[in-house]
Amino acid sequence: MDSVNGSLLILMPDREDDAGLLAANLREMVAGLEVRIWPELGDPADVRMVVSWRHPPGALGRFPNLDVVASFGAGVEHILVDKGLPSGVRIVRTVDESLVRDMVEYVLLAVVTWRRRWESFQLNQAKGLWAPQSYPAQTSVLVLGAGRLGGAVSKALIDLGHRVASWSRTGSESQGARCLEVEGALCEALPHAEGVICLLPLSSETEGILSRPMFERMKEGSLLVNVARGRHLVEEDLLDALKRGRPAHAVLDVFREEPLPAAHSFWTHPKITVTPHVAALTDPKEAARRVAENWRRLSEGEDLLDVVDVERGY
Amino acid sequence: MDSVNGSLLILMPDREDDAGLLAANLREMVAGLEVRIWPELGDPADVRMVVSWRHPPGALGRFPNLDVVASFGAGVEHILVDKGLPSGVRIVRTVDESLVRDMVEYVLLAVVTWRRRWESFQLNQAKGLWAPQSYPAQTSVLVLGAGRLGGAVSKALIDLGHRVASWSRTGSESQGARCLEVEGALCEALPHAEGVICLLPLSSETEGILSRPMFERMKEGSLLVNVARGRHLVEEDLLDALKRGRPAHAVLDVFREEPLPAAHSFWTHPKITVTPHVAALTDPKEAARRVAENWRRLSEGEDLLDVVDVERGY
Repeated sequence: MDSVNGSLLILMPDREDDAGLLAANLREMVAGLEVRIWPELGDPADVRMVVSWRHPPGALGRFPNLDVVASFGAGVEHILVDKGLPSGVRIVRTVDESLVRDMVEYVLLAVVTWRRRWESFQLNQAKGLWAPQSYPAQTSVLVLGAGRLGGAVSKALIDLGHRVASWSRTGSESQGARCLEVEGALCEALPHAEGVICLLPLSSETEGILSRPMFERMKEGSLLVNVARGRHLVEEDLLDALKRGRPAHAVLDVFREEPLPAAHSFWTHPKITVTPHVAALTDPKEAARRVAENWRRLSEGEDLLDVVDVERGY
Repeated sequence: MDSVNGSLLILMPDREDDAGLLAANLREMVAGLEVRIWPELGDPADVRMVVSWRHPPGALGRFPNLDVVASFGAGVEHILVDKGLPSGVRIVRTVDESLVRDMVEYVLLAVVTWRRRWESFQLNQAKGLWAPQSYPAQTSVLVLGAGRLGGAVSKALIDLGHRVASWSRTGSESQGARCLEVEGALCEALPHAEGVICLLPLSSETEGILSRPMFERMKEGSLLVNVARGRHLVEEDLLDALKRGRPAHAVLDVFREEPLPAAHSFWTHPKITVTPHVAALTDPKEAARRVAENWRRLSEGEDLLDVVDVERGY
């Protein structure tokens, strides 16, 4: 493999452990690659590629020869909001297979514990009560988002025998799921869904999509799962909607402010399950493989993997 | 379709609702079929096929022209224990697709809630504590039983990225899982498994298999799931083993006595999850399809589906 001149900078101030593991794996995978970890920059002119997770805004403007910014994860909104991002720099996401599987697993857990009333068995056990309950043979699930994550979640739910409708703004095809191409179709699908899963990218078009107009169309007794970004959700609208049972419960892994502030009402809400942004974690070793492959493609002038359309926002 | 002379009797004293649904579906699916529900027998000499769930012992001896007994479920031990079963009568199981999917779903739930420490998030939420924890990328699971249920569970766990070893007494192949053919291999696999799932048929060879010799070889901190039959488990041995953390937790859906008696220590054991035999329910409509197909095969002299080897016990 030819080596591009220049170095790769890991710019993940909050995640020192992951940064160290990513660097070690990259050095092992790409012979001769110079990997630096913020704040050890060396000569800023050497930096051709940055792996970022919530970098300090403006920091990317310091690298005159920057070609590529790779997000250490599926989301890139933390990169796109940086007004100091030099134009012409390409942005890529990192969606490793292990992250996809984790996400599938988390969503299955959320949907199945709800559909089978798992909590009622815990409560019955505490009372010493043997109370078999049947459950519907199938659950209808609406998956918002039909990218790699939304597609994989839809497929896994179908494999378990559930009915899945998949919606994306662009109407892209999802594996085996009925696809709802336009907003009208979303409105038609909502009243039939026993579970609604948000796996949308965050953009100006999707911010706040989980809000009153959607909740009013949801089925009574249904479940909402948000595993995308906190800003997809209008929090006050959810609190109102839960009072009316549409949805009847919400499983939330992401929040507008993370960590979720100690005084936030979600913590103690009986109809909200809070998990601390752990649905799917980027595995540093798997991520290193994707980053190494993009470094090789950069070196050899090939198309990069998982390139983000900056206009579209994902 | 030719019609066999004679009638089909549904003999499920505990399950009136299911008996009614099964009868209605069978009448709709098989034109002209005479379906009776115990205790309405009509002339016992007419009965060619019985669908049984825990029939009164000896009851089957009353039908001189009985050809087939179908279990309303995957297990047949409730039929085989009946010493009054006339010789020459064939026994079939009913494993409908919906039962297979339910079982897969339940086992995934048990394994994933354990592997991802779902309970710790519930406890942390109650404390208002944001404490992201990572979890291993994969879990090693040992599935005991490689029939339709064990095979489907193994495949689903593999699809989620887990390592699966599958064991059966006969060493039959399971889809994609490493297969452990002999008892020695079982002993070798146990120390590596973070989860052990029992999906074996109940026979004289497997009764009590979940007992001290197995528990002593299990990995510290591992999970035991029994979704087969209560008599696979030696209950006192489990209570001892939980003290040593091998296994560290047990999810039990089946028990020697069902309903589990109110005074039983499992109800209040902090390391045991009790569910009331609901992992997988036979769906009367799906079951009717399998029974109708076997009635057709009986009529036309074809081989039956899901025939049980009476010697082997499953």
